[in-house]
Amino acid sequence: MVLDRLLKFLPAKTVYAHCDVPCGIYDPKSAQIAAATVLKMVQKLKEYPEEDLNNRVRAIWTKEEHARKCKEEILILWTDYFKAEHLEKYPDLHDTFWQAAKLCSLNKQNVDEKKAQELVQAVDKIADIFAETKKS
Amino acid sequence: MVLDRLLKFLPAKTVYAHCDVPCGIYDPKSAQIAAATVLKMVQKLKEYPEEDLNNRVRAIWTKEEHARKCKEEILILWTDYFKAEHLEKYPDLHDTFWQAAKLCSLNKQNVDEKKAQELVQAVDKIADIFAETKKS
Amino acid sequence: MVLDRLLKFLPAKTVYAHCDVPCGIYDPKSAQIAAATVLKMVQKLKEYPEEDLNNRVRAIWTKEEHARKCKEEILILWTDYFKAEHLEKYPDLHDTFWQAAKLCSLNKQNVDEKKAQELVQAVDKIADIFAETKKS
Amino acid sequence: MVLDRLLKFLPAKTVYAHCDVPCGIYDPKSAQIAAATVLKMVQKLKEYPEEDLNNRVRAIWTKEEHARKCKEEILILWTDYFKAEHLEKYPDLHDTFWQAAKLCSLNKQNVDEKKAQELVQAVDKIADIFAETKKS
Amino acid sequence: MVLDRLLKFLPAKTVYAHCDVPCGIYDPKSAQIAAATVLKMVQKLKEYPEEDLNNRVRAIWTKEEHARKCKEEILILWTDYFKAEHLEKYPDLHDTFWQAAKLCSLNKQNVDEKKAQELVQAVDKIADIFAETKKS
Amino acid sequence: MVLDRLLKFLPAKTVYAHCDVPCGIYDPKSAQIAAATVLKMVQKLKEYPEEDLNNRVRAIWTKEEHARKCKEEILILWTDYFKAEHLEKYPDLHDTFWQAAKLCSLNKQNVDEKKAQELVQAVDKIADIFAETKKS
Repeated sequence: MVLDRLLKFLPAKTVYAHCDVPCGIYDPKSAQIAAATVLKMVQKLKEYPEEDLNNRVRAIWTKEEHARKCKEEILILWTDYFKAEHLEKYPDLHDTFWQAAKLCSLNKQNVDEKKAQELVQAVDKIADIFAETKKS
Repeated sequence: MVLDRLLKFLPAKTVYAHCDVPCGIYDPKSAQIAAATVLKMVQKLKEYPEEDLNNRVRAIWTKEEHARKCKEEILILWTDYFKAEHLEKYPDLHDTFWQAAKLCSLNKQNVDEKKAQELVQAVDKIADIFAETKKS
Repeated sequence: MVLDRLLKFLPAKTVYAHCDVPCGIYDPKSAQIAAATVLKMVQKLKEYPEEDLNNRVRAIWTKEEHARKCKEEILILWTDYFKAEHLEKYPDLHDTFWQAAKLCSLNKQNVDEKKAQELVQAVDKIADIFAETKKS
Repeated sequence: MVLDRLLKFLPAKTVYAHCDVPCGIYDPKSAQIAAATVLKMVQKLKEYPEEDLNNRVRAIWTKEEHARKCKEEILILWTDYFKAEHLEKYPDLHDTFWQAAKLCSLNKQNVDEKKAQELVQAVDKIADIFAETKKS
Repeated sequence: MVLDRLLKFLPAKTVYAHCDVPCGIYDPKSAQIAAATVLKMVQKLKEYPEEDLNNRVRAIWTKEEHARKCKEEILILWTDYFKAEHLEKYPDLHDTFWQAAKLCSLNKQNVDEKKAQELVQAVDKIADIFAETKKS
Repeated sequence: MVLDRLLKFLPAKTVYAHCDVPCGIYDPKSAQIAAATVLKMVQKLKEYPEEDLNNRVRAIWTKEEHARKCKEEILILWTDYFKAEHLEKYPDLHDTFWQAAKLCSLNKQNVDEKKAQELVQAVDKIADIFAETKKS
């Protein structure tokens, strides 16, 4: 069956969530890609020559948009995927998401490779917790 | 001065936050209006006659959009306005926002006046906490 | 009742309008906040150092977006809230909105504190007229 | 030259306006197409069989979206293209746009071929005035 | 009849397509206007003085947005209007659209009048093919 | 290094592309998830009871939105990732994308599990070609 094929194509313990029907499809990968894009833009902003305003403005805007998207994606996991039973096992769950969300805003306001790397790590940590919840 | 006039116009202890510059402007009212709209749509969905598909579809969509907006607005307060010092005074802060966000999703999936009223109350509670933090 | 509580929470003679169901909910406050944000961004654009391209670009974009939103919000009042009977009492109504809308566009094209203050005043005038119509 | 070719392709006395740079490009055609789409959707809503919920919902949503777009497009003309000198020649200008904008809202709230035709005619009238201002 | 009037108003052999109901309304003009706007922004970016960051940023953003819109509009024609029978008559059809879409991306990444003119020409070529298919 | 960690986390031969900076990040997975969502919504539309208008309307809208997103995602691959050298190796490349895009529109207009499965298969085929190009 087609759906079987698709499910085989996707990594075994990964689910994706992106709509509120709910479709039961969740995945931290979108947030990870957004965080990686923020980091990439910070790096590009160091490389573009001063006079290339076109691409500096475009990179600033892409950084803003993907920091926003990163926050949106992790908050979908926090508000829709994680349930009361997860909280028991991960008592720091709320704070983990709160700090990651705050890093999204900090990366909008700054062009700072260290802060962008902290965002990547914070989202990786969320992805690790998510992966653990899928195992059990 | 014009800005003074504006500040006088606005309720004394109210600030509004809606962009990430940051502009330091925050307010729970947008979330309250969104929650009230969700409730209003649930009520209208009971009143529209069965055959008025046009307005039933429009009310379902407006409910969906304002439940989404309500969630977005409260999460702006949670991630950008509230700081570590607030957490000490309000140890249930994270859970309060988590439950309110989950009510937004529940109101998308249901047409249920009780759940809509719970959302209105949850957002009112957030507004009360917000107002208290502005006093001190 | 919950709705009663909400209505008590909101200022007595204020109604809000933001969807086209219609939900009968109108308020000039969104336009006032947008106008205040335009002014704030003009002021920030004077403060940011020349080399902080990231935040100058972000402030320009926030100014653009809130000038657009300000125009959208006042035109909702003009096209949906105000009726023929208001025109009789306020013969300059159309021109008041027209000039305010034109100020939104001017504030997109300029970084000019005087023009931003004129926009704040123009929207305040609309809020005053709105408040008067609610009294009678 | 390429631009000459383009300008030749476009009807001689027509200009288009769609951004706020400003680019000096205005045209009532977008509003006319949106109005025509509203009318088309009303007609389709009569044709779709009762059980074809998929396409009835899609037509209701397309009607809503194009009524919104129609209003947006005519208000761009009103706020950005028309100037004080036009008002002298067309003393009913403000009212013409006001009534057309109100027809957009009415067509959201109803599935009524007569109202949709009134919207098409109201936008045609605006297009006629616009064309006259380009002649002189 | 109103629709007859509208159809008379529109150029005889032109149809417009912009929604996926489908409404059977297609036209390459939106893509042509978007391409012309890209070219206009490139020209404005040469004229704005170095210190007018506000309008340089706004022109960069308008160029980006209309390059995106140009691509979107031509791909609507390619995916929804053109059918298998057109391919037989225009064996280069796919490549023509592919190259035009790639020019949209190139004009985002560059401020280059020559590339902007190539985009205008590429969209004109699409418009010519479209016009021919309407004759037969 | 953080970026190394991230790159290790992602499947070895996968790259993602989602912005036009360009960031060189491309992946067919977003299109696959969108296609899977279309199929899921078609299945849900069969399960919802007749009287649950709320969730039937929401599923129709989610189907529409993800069919649109699926088309958008595959066209990003076609216009930005694939180059002339790929065409030589995959002479049917253009037609493969064209047919897949047309399937997106068909799935908007219908609630048909067979057509939804054809869309899933068409996007899988694109993912296979993409994976092959990454190997060489």
